[in-house]
Amino acid sequence: MNPLYEGKAKRLWATEDPNVLRMEFKNDATAFNGEKKAQFENKGRLNNAISTLIYGFLEKEGVPTHFVRQIDDTNVEVRKVDILMVEVIIRNISAGSFCKRTGIEEGRAFSQPIIEFCIKSDELGDPLVNDDYIRELSLATADELAFLRQSALKVNTILTDFFAKCGLKLVDFKLEFGRLATDPKTIVLADEISPDGCRLWDLKTGEKMDKDRFRRDLGNVMEAYAEVLERVKEATA
Amino acid sequence: MNPLYEGKAKRLWATEDPNVLRMEFKNDATAFNGEKKAQFENKGRLNNAISTLIYGFLEKEGVPTHFVRQIDDTNVEVRKVDILMVEVIIRNISAGSFCKRTGIEEGRAFSQPIIEFCIKSDELGDPLVNDDYIRELSLATADELAFLRQSALKVNTILTDFFAKCGLKLVDFKLEFGRLATDPKTIVLADEISPDGCRLWDLKTGEKMDKDRFRRDLGNVMEAYAEVLERVKEATA
Ligand SMILES: Nc1ncnc2c1ncn2[C@@H]1O[C@H](COP(=O)(O)OP(=O)(O)O)[C@@H](O)[C@H]1O
Ligand SMILES: Nc1ncnc2c1ncn2[C@@H]1O[C@H](COP(=O)(O)OP(=O)(O)O)[C@@H](O)[C@H]1O
Ligand SMILES: [Mg+2]
Ligand SMILES: [Mg+2]
Repeated sequence: MNPLYEGKAKRLWATEDPNVLRMEFKNDATAFNGEKKAQFENKGRLNNAISTLIYGFLEKEGVPTHFVRQIDDTNVEVRKVDILMVEVIIRNISAGSFCKRTGIEEGRAFSQPIIEFCIKSDELGDPLVNDDYIRELSLATADELAFLRQSALKVNTILTDFFAKCGLKLVDFKLEFGRLATDPKTIVLADEISPDGCRLWDLKTGEKMDKDRFRRDLGNVMEAYAEVLERVKEATA
Repeated sequence: MNPLYEGKAKRLWATEDPNVLRMEFKNDATAFNGEKKAQFENKGRLNNAISTLIYGFLEKEGVPTHFVRQIDDTNVEVRKVDILMVEVIIRNISAGSFCKRTGIEEGRAFSQPIIEFCIKSDELGDPLVNDDYIRELSLATADELAFLRQSALKVNTILTDFFAKCGLKLVDFKLEFGRLATDPKTIVLADEISPDGCRLWDLKTGEKMDKDRFRRDLGNVMEAYAEVLERVKEATA
């Protein structure tokens, strides 16, 4: 059997229910639009465990997600969605492409979160766009965009608080949303939430506990992910 | 005497009135953030003549600008402003960086104009930003941004119609705005409006009549600028 889709970090598989998919977390790590690649033992397991706990927490907090249940170490069942080709990035502290783009140093706390929309396209390099671009490219309707913004801010409020309890600063993170296969008018949070797509800094030491360890060759990549999992487990216990 | 500022295409000089500057149009042409350079005889004269006629027309249409009067072939008097470090780009048809960013072919007419804001910084490559970036970088207040958007749309409506009368399609263009030195609460249109910062296509032949002739080595650069000036003269006669 072949996966329906094989991405950089996950595979999607069909299930008996046409409206439900199995999402498999791989051990592959990529950065810089897939230019830098590596494999890490346990990465799939760690991201699945972290993402599963966070999605459970978000659901409890009233955020509708694609999450159905964890199947095993590296697999979850999710509701099938039509992914919006808009990635939503929420920034609380300057880092990454924000710093490159603006020349601002890393670590500046924003007065309010920055929400940004990027076209989900590795080929184009996930370019930043504005609402007018999204309208003209028909990537989302104005109502959908308003919903994405509102949801992103809500998730940010919940997760900033949640990670603070884990002794972690939520610097920035990426969300994907999709229209439910069973009801395309309903948009839910999809994909994963893990150190692959979140910048997390230790509140006390400032240490990076996320994919930047891989991007910047800081070492102890999976050790950091494992530490994040331990803290997330405690916070949700 | 030294200019107060020497840019890529113009020089600013002090006048006897501290609130008035002399803006001198040079013959220098640059593209790709100053990477490509050339000199064109008459360029300063042509851009000054075109910009002067357009600013006169905009003032008549009720758009407040920095324009005071033409001094001579290559010089105008303008009200001194504190330039907003946000360049405003208005797009009616896909071209240039829009196409690069999105992978869309050149020449697609938009359903509504696209307004985009870029940080005015050659060093950073005039990067596209969104409203949240502008707030966090303190480049403009929310009220100022709303005013820029509204003004840009108004100027676009006026100039689209104006250039149509010149047999030219206004594909896209860049505007700069500034806070009046005499009254910083008042924002006016500043800088220049010429084929350096507008994409203009001949309505009948589709021929490019703007700086893209220089960017793409299409030849007859100043011939095109001179033709634009002739048509603008006729339309304002
Ligand atoms: N519930 C879902 N239904 C359908 N597709 C999904 C769902 N959740 C996530 N996806 C998509 O599945 C893919 C997951 O694999 P990933 O390795 O992240 O791919 P990519 O390299 O495209 O980012 C992504 O393209 C993501 O948008
Ligand atoms: N009325 C004005 N008052 C002050 N500065 C202005 C005014 N109009 C334009 N400017 C600025 O003067 C400079 C004009 O020179 P230019 O060659 O275009 O410079 P640049 O290379 O920075 O684009 C620009 O930086 C522009 O923002
Ligand atoms: Mg992905
Ligand atoms: Mg300029």
